[in-house]
This record gives sequence, structure tokens and C-alpha cells, in this order.
Amino acid sequence: MIAPLAVSMGDPAGIGPEIVAKAWAMRESARLAPFFAVGDARAIERVWSGPIATIDSPDAAPAAFASALPVLSVEDAGAITPGEPDSDGARCALHSLEVATGLARTGAAGALVTGPVSKAQLYKIGFTHPGQTEFVAERFGVAGENAVMMLVGPSLRVVPITTHVPLASVPSLLSVELIVAKARATARGLERNFGIAEPRLAFAGFNPHAGEQGAIGREEIDLIVPAIEALRAEGIDAVGPFASDTMFHARARSQYDVAMCCYHDQALVPLKTLHFDEGVNMTLGLPIVRTSPDHGTAFAIAGKDKAEPGATIAAIRIAAEAAQRRAAERT
Amino acid sequence: MIAPLAVSMGDPAGIGPEIVAKAWAMRESARLAPFFAVGDARAIERVWSGPIATIDSPDAAPAAFASALPVLSVEDAGAITPGEPDSDGARCALHSLEVATGLARTGAAGALVTGPVSKAQLYKIGFTHPGQTEFVAERFGVAGENAVMMLVGPSLRVVPITTHVPLASVPSLLSVELIVAKARATARGLERNFGIAEPRLAFAGFNPHAGEQGAIGREEIDLIVPAIEALRAEGIDAVGPFASDTMFHARARSQYDVAMCCYHDQALVPLKTLHFDEGVNMTLGLPIVRTSPDHGTAFAIAGKDKAEPGATIAAIRIAAEAAQRRAAERT
Repeated sequence: MIAPLAVSMGDPAGIGPEIVAKAWAMRESARLAPFFAVGDARAIERVWSGPIATIDSPDAAPAAFASALPVLSVEDAGAITPGEPDSDGARCALHSLEVATGLARTGAAGALVTGPVSKAQLYKIGFTHPGQTEFVAERFGVAGENAVMMLVGPSLRVVPITTHVPLASVPSLLSVELIVAKARATARGLERNFGIAEPRLAFAGFNPHAGEQGAIGREEIDLIVPAIEALRAEGIDAVGPFASDTMFHARARSQYDVAMCCYHDQALVPLKTLHFDEGVNMTLGLPIVRTSPDHGTAFAIAGKDKAEPGATIAAIRIAAEAAQRRAAERT
Repeated sequence: MIAPLAVSMGDPAGIGPEIVAKAWAMRESARLAPFFAVGDARAIERVWSGPIATIDSPDAAPAAFASALPVLSVEDAGAITPGEPDSDGARCALHSLEVATGLARTGAAGALVTGPVSKAQLYKIGFTHPGQTEFVAERFGVAGENAVMMLVGPSLRVVPITTHVPLASVPSLLSVELIVAKARATARGLERNFGIAEPRLAFAGFNPHAGEQGAIGREEIDLIVPAIEALRAEGIDAVGPFASDTMFHARARSQYDVAMCCYHDQALVPLKTLHFDEGVNMTLGLPIVRTSPDHGTAFAIAGKDKAEPGATIAAIRIAAEAAQRRAAERT
């Protein structure tokens, strides 16, 4: 039995509080392992009328979970207005993330699930990381190239090797070393978190038609092919590069466990085209399990009871399954 | 009543002959308008045992169509071996394309549907165009920026503004003028071919998250936004730029008639992820209707009775509907 999962609520003015509460409300039909929210309990009360149990410690979460949403209230988020983010809210979101991460590190929480934050608001209060993934990786002393952002949907897993950078800069950011490091962490992460003994990694080309043997671009020849050869020499089942437009239909997806993509949209377009309401962001390469619903704060619909909890439910379920698998491996 | 459609067979060693024959075999259930194949009739006989009617002129096609596949045999393709392309076959494919294009130009054929060719084989015999689209456009004296490649699936239409070029070169190839020219031809093409009175054009950003107001790339600010403003000033319903990863799920697709994309894979990945066996390539901006199944010669499965005719059937149906609409407009 793993410890209860910590779910940081994200920005209190976004849809985070609502979807955490809705996920709890569906705990039985979705068969979710016990979890607790971390944030200002008032943010949930503003948008949800169900039962809340304020707790002082994760230990109290499992007993409370059956009849109320356990909330570890960490900070006064000031005057909370759904859809209207402010700096008090951003400070609360950051503090929630800090506390939830710390609880996962000590083992008091079985895994970390992070709700959606507003990067624009976080930057205003001095946050300097590109996103929560990098923040969490740094808290565990994991170098950027060894922490991997993987997006998981019901029928597809993708890894963008580069993430939130201008597309024009990707050719200069890609290197054999970076591709190999990301792929190693991905292969190891699929083993540990999903129990896939010999994960199959399929690499997307960078150019149209994967460059047609150099006729339309050389990134495949200069970077991707050498990286694949290095990975195969290590015993990792790496194949490609493939033309990315023919990699994501159903028959193609059945041939691999993860698609390794050169840039953000190459990975995110197929994932969100297929699984818009169910995408989970998982960080591989950490000593803990961390997931997140793959969507933003959606301030425009916050407080209107319109937010879909599907991705949060999936994030909690995937995190719990991965944590259980890792705990079983250790014993 | 439009004239019968001309379907060039493509490379005789590829799956073109088989899928044209299979499309004819499904003419009733798919309710296809009369068409005739253009190519070496022996290429079909090698892979298909159904009835063939060799014709000398398109006029003879409608009467023959009910009981046999009409074939306008244009050239001896030499010794044809499915799966083994050669220069004789490439010459036959090019001649078939030439003849079919000419018949569409004179009006003897109601529209042009082109089967899959091997560019590698065509280059060996002196073909200098990037593909059939550019060849056909040139035959009609249409400049490259005014001829538009649109991919059509049952739930999505996409236009790649740049096509078969290295991805790293796209930022320098994109210009406000190019985007505006492609969008104008697209809007006009949707009106003429699909009867959409006020087509809605949604533009994808170039960078992740459409650049986040310049934080991760400036192509949106420098190129796409000014192009959209110019188009709106002309009365074209152009919106965006949007983050491309959130443009292609079902709810998003219902908001526009075509997604205008900056590069090949941005357009082709979602199209083929959703509609791999049904994608149709349509050239807009020509005085005739031209479509093509959006797949290659598939030499690996040629002659094995494994080829799926779905995209060819869709290409014929879309071409016939567009030709009928355009004919009705003229009368």
C-alpha cells in the first residue's frame, strides 16, 4: 500500500481546485487511490459544495478520503476570484507545489500530481523555471537532459526532446548527446513506471518525409541516426527516424511504446489531436513519480462548473499505478 | 452532367493500377461518377482479373463504365513487375499524367485524379518538378504561390503553406505575401470546390504555444498576425494564430473550414493521424479540379492485393463533386 498521493491545486483562480474536487467525487467509479489536495481550502469551497476534510498531515488523508476531500491547507491565497489570477494566488500555487514536492520527497506522499499554474503569474513573483517540470527536477538535483517530459494518452505516449523553445532554434539545440540522454531516461522510465521490460522507442524525423535521405534536410543523418545507433549499441530498442506524418495512425502506434519527437508540436499535436481531454504529463528521470493533467489553468471557464476532470483523474491513476509498481520493485 | 474523370494510373509498378481497379469495382456502393484510367492497361491486368474496356477517347468511357473499367492506354510501359520500378515505368507514368492533364484542360475529362508516382524514378528520366502538383500547376501557367496543396479528410482540411523543404528553412521561406497568397487561393478554392460561401481559415502558429506573445519565437508577431490582418481587411474570415497542439481535436476542428499551417508536418501529422486511409490531396488555384490519393506508390505491397482503395475512392468522389459544383456555377 503506497502513501496517499499529494495533488497540488495549482493556481487558485484557475480550474485546478474544481478538477481536484471533481476527481475526488469520482473516486469510486474511477477507482482512485487515496489522495489529498495541497492548497488553500477556500479555493475549493468557492467552486464546489462537496465535503472537505482539512488535514494537518498526509497520515490523516486515507481515513478521511472515503467521506471527504482531504485538503492540506498551506497558505492564505488572499481574495480568490475564479478567473482573475493575482500575485497572492501565484504565491499560494508556488507554496502548494513546494509543500507537495517536499512530501513526495520524504515519502509522506506516495507520488506528486501537480495542478495547472499560470506561468505568467509565477514569473511576476520571481519564479525563474520554464515550468513546474524543471522546478521539480531541480528540487531533486536532476539535470535537465536527464529529466524527461512524457505525455501519456490512452493510445499514445510521446516525448518532446526539446520543449518550450522557438522552433527555429531546435536544429541548434538538438545534439546526439541530448537525444541519447533523453532516450535513456525514457527507456528507464517506461520500465520503472509502466513495467515495460524492453520498451520500443520510435524516433520521428525532423524534416518532411524524415529528410528523404538528406534531400530535404540533414538533421536525420547528422543527429538522429547516430543517436539511434548509440542507443542500439547500449541494448535499447530504438528505431527510425520515421516520417512523422505516418507515425501516429492506429496501426503505426501499435508498433512502439513511445514516440521520441524532435520538438514540442511534433509530439503534442498528435497527442492532443487524439486525446485532448485525457492527456497526462509525466516527468521521467526523478526519484519520485510526478504527473500532471496536460492542460492549463483555463481561467476563462474557472468557477463555471465547466471544467472536465478527465485528465486529472488519469494523472492520479497513472501516478498511483506507477508508484505501486515502483514500491513493489523495491520490496 | 460532367465529362468522365481522368485517373492517371501513376507508376505501373506501384499500387496505382490496383487501387484504380478496386475503386471501379466499388463504383456502385461508393456511388462514383464515371471515370477512366490513363496508363498501360497491362499494368492493371497484371494485378487484377476484372473486366477492362480499352477506349480510344474519353467519350467512350461513360457507356463502358457500367460493365468494365475504361482504360485509355497511352504507352507501352515495358516489362512491368509490381514492386520493381524502372525507367520505362516512370516514362509511362509521366506520359499518363501529361495525357490526363491535357484531357482535363480541354474539358474532355471532367476532372483530373492522379495516381501515385515515384519521384525518385521520375527524377531519373529528367522530371524536374518537386511533385505532380507543381507539374500540373505549371501546365496551367499558375504560379507556385497561387497553387495550393490542400489535404482533405472526412473531418479536417489542412493547407501546408510551405511543403517539401527542410524545416530549418521555413522561417526564411515564410513571408506575409506568401501566407496571404496561399490563403486567398484557399478561400477561393473552398468556395468554388466545396460551395462554402464564407470559408473560415484558422492559422496555426509556428512556435510552441503560438510563441506566447513573442516569448518563444517571433514568427507569429512578424509574419502570421500581419498576414491575418491583411486577409481580414480583404473580407476573408481569417483567425489565429493558435497553438497548433490545441487546434485539431474534434471541438476545435468544428470551428473552422481549413487549418492553415506553416510547414508540412504541422498539416500532415494531424491529417494522417485522424484519416490515414482516406486522405485526399487537392490542388486549389487551378482552372480545373485536381485531386490525388494522399499516399505513395507503396512498392512493398504492390501486386499483393493488399492495397486499400479508400483514398482513391475519396479522391474520385471529391473531384466529381467539385467539378459538378463548378459546372453548375458556370451555367
